[in-house]
Amino acid sequence: MTDVTRRAAIGATAALAAAPLLRPSVAEAAAPATAKQVPGVYRYKVGDIEVTVVTDGTRTVPLPDALVKNATKDQVSAALQAAFFDKDKFSFFFNPIVVNTGSKLVAIDAGNGAAAFEQSKGSVGQHQSNLTAAGIDPKTIDVVAISHFHPDHINGLLGADGKPAFANAEIVVPAAEWAFWMDEGNASRAADTLKPAFANVRRVFGALGNKVTQHEPNKEIVPGIKTLPTPGHTPGHTSHLITSGSHSVMVQGDVTNLPALFARNPGWHAMFDMDGAKAEETRRKLYDQLVADRMVVQGYHYTFPAAAHIEKDGDGYRPVPIPWQPVL
Amino acid sequence: MTDVTRRAAIGATAALAAAPLLRPSVAEAAAPATAKQVPGVYRYKVGDIEVTVVTDGTRTVPLPDALVKNATKDQVSAALQAAFFDKDKFSFFFNPIVVNTGSKLVAIDAGNGAAAFEQSKGSVGQHQSNLTAAGIDPKTIDVVAISHFHPDHINGLLGADGKPAFANAEIVVPAAEWAFWMDEGNASRAADTLKPAFANVRRVFGALGNKVTQHEPNKEIVPGIKTLPTPGHTPGHTSHLITSGSHSVMVQGDVTNLPALFARNPGWHAMFDMDGAKAEETRRKLYDQLVADRMVVQGYHYTFPAAAHIEKDGDGYRPVPIPWQPVL
Repeated sequence: MTDVTRRAAIGATAALAAAPLLRPSVAEAAAPATAKQVPGVYRYKVGDIEVTVVTDGTRTVPLPDALVKNATKDQVSAALQAAFFDKDKFSFFFNPIVVNTGSKLVAIDAGNGAAAFEQSKGSVGQHQSNLTAAGIDPKTIDVVAISHFHPDHINGLLGADGKPAFANAEIVVPAAEWAFWMDEGNASRAADTLKPAFANVRRVFGALGNKVTQHEPNKEIVPGIKTLPTPGHTPGHTSHLITSGSHSVMVQGDVTNLPALFARNPGWHAMFDMDGAKAEETRRKLYDQLVADRMVVQGYHYTFPAAAHIEKDGDGYRPVPIPWQPVL
Repeated sequence: MTDVTRRAAIGATAALAAAPLLRPSVAEAAAPATAKQVPGVYRYKVGDIEVTVVTDGTRTVPLPDALVKNATKDQVSAALQAAFFDKDKFSFFFNPIVVNTGSKLVAIDAGNGAAAFEQSKGSVGQHQSNLTAAGIDPKTIDVVAISHFHPDHINGLLGADGKPAFANAEIVVPAAEWAFWMDEGNASRAADTLKPAFANVRRVFGALGNKVTQHEPNKEIVPGIKTLPTPGHTPGHTSHLITSGSHSVMVQGDVTNLPALFARNPGWHAMFDMDGAKAEETRRKLYDQLVADRMVVQGYHYTFPAAAHIEKDGDGYRPVPIPWQPVL
């Protein structure tokens, strides 16, 4: 860790300049600003399959007036406060994963990409540096499976140079998602707020060319990972079911955004759900199934490491984060 | 990270031996067994103070028949299962912390130590290696504050060589805890099950000699960290309140063990609580205060990173883990 060297160097300088008589340990302790957060990486097993959660970071914005289409801003503030978040802000947490099935290395979603890293000063777009911290070379990834075409899931498919970030990977996308976003009629009829997303889809997949494969729902994309259509958030939004032996995890993409709002209140329609009613129907159905099966869900917008069991709580659902295991 | 090198080496060997025609990325993916868990380290701020949680690991045992003195084994099993743990096992999670106040580097509790690391094959006793991963040199720690004298909190004060593991640190211990364990009458009257703990206290503190300082409750041990007597688990059991500006965190030691059992059921008396009734009184009082103040608790036996807000839930309490922040 370079922190050790940096910290020692800065600590030593501070000691020389300001407090030459302090013993070294005190001078060392006087430099807390040199510390930084550890990489957001966590591993767990699903039977014989290994999942590595590799966070892309977090973006915090002032609470939008209409984050939830069918709830007031005050109701949303109250829910945030009840969950011990700042009542006036909203945080997007981004958590792509890498799945080692034993024969294939499969990334699910790709994060916000290099430009976002620059713009946010490192708060988002961390996926590539955290892959390095996890000991995963992007060149070794065989498949990148995409849940849907929003920018925070696909922009990381390209590197800072605009070239494929996963040089040897096949990019597997839902056929229904491709059909929707690539339709020129849909693009021309799109509301002004959606036009940038259509343009972004063309930019990203234009640069990827023939590396992209469309897949139909309810199919295995590699042994151990099956697609499940979960539409509403976008027309072709897709979840991924990881199974090994009797163990399964549901990688839900954006079936909910932050669970403190949208699992606790499954009837709330987020501003980014393209079809709120369909998204709610999908959400309730999937979460009822998670409860019945006592299955772990891996949620892209959950807080890292973004894996939880789900219990029913009144009309809603409550995530119970999996316990961090200090050994794999 | 040595993982990169090891994984590449083993991947290459496997490719040569078994699958020479596979492309490198597939050979790489075929070696999942080479991955290991990331270090259990996490940082957060309390005002200007920086807390680093540095896990000591986890120990899982068959569920003891009398883990809870005043509940049946079936009731305990049911509570474990409701929280998505294995109903027939109990896991001890161990989470010491290091606090950088800006002028002092203070460790709170010291983990299970080097012998436990060997015995458990690395499952517990990770504190020293995780300190290294966190970029913290044990020699730079000014103070180690101890909550109480059970082996999982004090054995890490000594290294594998039996010498002080924190070479330059003052070891600050609760005066009431010292008085109880060092009393020869208490030692000779102790039940056989407790005699090893008395012997262990003498072994550890005997090797530390004049590095140990006793402190009275409700005093600052360094600016920003105050002791709070929380007796019951042991006679001198002590919590530590970290405060910077308007921000505080309560470092609770063993006021509860695993919260899924003992925060949810504050009336349950754990077999390791020396005075169950007193421990319950302390627990209810502290947790009511945490709820009223909306204060974060740092719990030694919580799951990593072991920090949570507390909400009231029926007769009990429910931890709401703090959201992992990918930037400090």
